[in-house]
Amino acid sequence: MIEICEVGPRDGLQNEKKPISTDQKVEMITRLIDAGIKKIEAVSFVNPKVVPQMADAEEVMKRVPRVDGVKYAGLILNYSGMERAMKTDVDIFHIVTTTSDAFNLKNARKTVDQNVAEHITVIQEAVAAKKPVTGVLGTAFGCPYSGEVPVDRVLEISEAFVKAGASEIVLADTTGLANPVQVAEVVNRFQRHYGDDIKLGLHFHNTRGLGLANVLAGYQAGIRRFDSSIAGLGGCPFAPKAVGNVCTEDMVNMFAGMGVETGTDLQKLVETALWMEEQMEKRLDGMVMKV
Amino acid sequence: MIEICEVGPRDGLQNEKKPISTDQKVEMITRLIDAGIKKIEAVSFVNPKVVPQMADAEEVMKRVPRVDGVKYAGLILNYSGMERAMKTDVDIFHIVTTTSDAFNLKNARKTVDQNVAEHITVIQEAVAAKKPVTGVLGTAFGCPYSGEVPVDRVLEISEAFVKAGASEIVLADTTGLANPVQVAEVVNRFQRHYGDDIKLGLHFHNTRGLGLANVLAGYQAGIRRFDSSIAGLGGCPFAPKAVGNVCTEDMVNMFAGMGVETGTDLQKLVETALWMEEQMEKRLDGMVMKV
Repeated sequence: MIEICEVGPRDGLQNEKKPISTDQKVEMITRLIDAGIKKIEAVSFVNPKVVPQMADAEEVMKRVPRVDGVKYAGLILNYSGMERAMKTDVDIFHIVTTTSDAFNLKNARKTVDQNVAEHITVIQEAVAAKKPVTGVLGTAFGCPYSGEVPVDRVLEISEAFVKAGASEIVLADTTGLANPVQVAEVVNRFQRHYGDDIKLGLHFHNTRGLGLANVLAGYQAGIRRFDSSIAGLGGCPFAPKAVGNVCTEDMVNMFAGMGVETGTDLQKLVETALWMEEQMEKRLDGMVMKV
Repeated sequence: MIEICEVGPRDGLQNEKKPISTDQKVEMITRLIDAGIKKIEAVSFVNPKVVPQMADAEEVMKRVPRVDGVKYAGLILNYSGMERAMKTDVDIFHIVTTTSDAFNLKNARKTVDQNVAEHITVIQEAVAAKKPVTGVLGTAFGCPYSGEVPVDRVLEISEAFVKAGASEIVLADTTGLANPVQVAEVVNRFQRHYGDDIKLGLHFHNTRGLGLANVLAGYQAGIRRFDSSIAGLGGCPFAPKAVGNVCTEDMVNMFAGMGVETGTDLQKLVETALWMEEQMEKRLDGMVMKV
C-alpha cells in the first residue's frame, strides 16, 4: 500500500501566476478527498508578500472538509510560520529547509545552519503542542546552484530534525536532479541509519522527465510514501525552469499497472486533473489525463 | 554500455503533419551521428500514400553520410517494402508486425498470422541477401483496442521470426501501456527462452509518462539496447493520442546520472533536439532540453 501525500494545493499552486481563489482550493481539496487521497499538504504558512498564492492559508484551513482518516499538512519555513500554523487545525507540520546554503539563502534568506537552528525550536514547540512533525529536506539530491549535496550533510540535517522530535523525514528533489541509482543509494543510507525508527518519504519533480523512474527506484528500495501533485502542477519560485511535481494520477496509474494499491480512484483523479486544467486555464503536465 | 537505436527520423517523423524535406532529414541524421549515435532507424519502406512523410526513403538512404561504425536501419512492413529496401544500402532490416489482430488490421490491413506468414518469406530473402534482420513486435505490452496481449503469443511470433532468421528482437510498447513490473516479467520470460542466442531490445512510448521508468525496469532486467527518439518526437497514425517515443537526450541524461555509458554527447543531443524544435516549428516533448 502506497501512502500518497498530495502536494498540489501547496507546491502545485504556490508558483502559479493566475490567482486561485479560496473557493477553488477548497473544491480542489474536496475533489482529491473524494478520489481517495488521505493526506494533503493543503497550505503554506509563508510570507504572503513573497508567495501571494498562499496568503489565504488560515481561510483554507477553516473551510476544508474534515473527513475521517484524512489529514492536512501545512508547510512551515520559520518560527512565525509555526506560530500561524498553531492557530489553525492543521494536523501535520511539514517543516522545511533545503540542504544547500546557495539554495537556502534564496529560498529562506538564511544559511542552512541558521534555518536548522531556528527549526529545532519550531519542532520542539510543535511536538510540545502534540503536532506530528515531518522534516522536509529540499535539494537532498543536488542543488542547481552549488551542485552535489553530500548524503552525509543531508543526514546530519535530518538528525537535527529527528533529535528535536520529527517523526518522519521527506527527502525532496527540489529541481529534478535525482537519478534512480542515486535514489537507491540515498534511501539505503537513510534506512541503514534509521531502520524502522523514522518513516521516510520521497518528493520528486519531473524537471528532467525522471519523476516516475525515481519513484520506481524509491519503491524498489522500500519506500511506500510519496509526494505528488494532481495534474503534475508545480514549480518553485527560486528554482528556474523547475517543472511540476510528479503527477499524482500518472503515479497512481503506474502503481495500478504494477499491482500496487494506492487506495485511490484513478478515474476520479483524472477527472480532478481535467477540472484543474479548466481552473488554471492552461494545459498541465499530466500524461494519463490526455489519453 | 547502452546501445541506442535512434528512431526519430522514422517513428519520430512519420506521423508529423508538417512535411520535412530530405535535406532536413539528412541534416537531422548528420547531427545525430555527430552527437555519437551509432544506430539510426532512418527510413520506412511503407506505402507513400499512407505515410507521405516517409515517401523519400530511397533518396534519404542515397544521401545520408556513411560513417565507420554507424548503421542504418529501415522499417519494413511487407514484401514490397523489402523489395524496395533491397535496392538501397540500408544496413539492417527492421521487420515489423504488431502482435494484436485488432491493431494489425488497422496498421497493416492483415491479421497477425497473415503478416507473420508474409514476413517469414521476407526474412528468409533478407537473410539470403546477407542483411541482418531485427524482428520488431508492436503492441507487445498491450493493445489499445483489444487489451492484454499474452506473453505466450508475443513469444510465438518472435519464434517464427527467429526461426526464419532474425538475429534480434525488439519488443515495442506502441501506445505506452507497459509498466515496470510487466517489463521485468516479459523480459525475464524472453531471456529464459533465448538465453544469449538472441539480442533483445526495447521500444517504449511515453504516452502515460512511464517511458523512462520502463527503460529503467528493462535495464535492471539486463537489457542494454533501447530505441529512443530525439526531442521525444513520435506517435503512430493508428494509435490515437499516442505521444512520442522515449526521448533520446532524456534517456541519455538518466543513464549519465546513473553512471552508465551511452557513447553519446548529451550537450550535442540537446542542441540537436533544440534544432529539431525549430524544424518542426512547435514545442516538442523532451524535458532536459528545456532546462
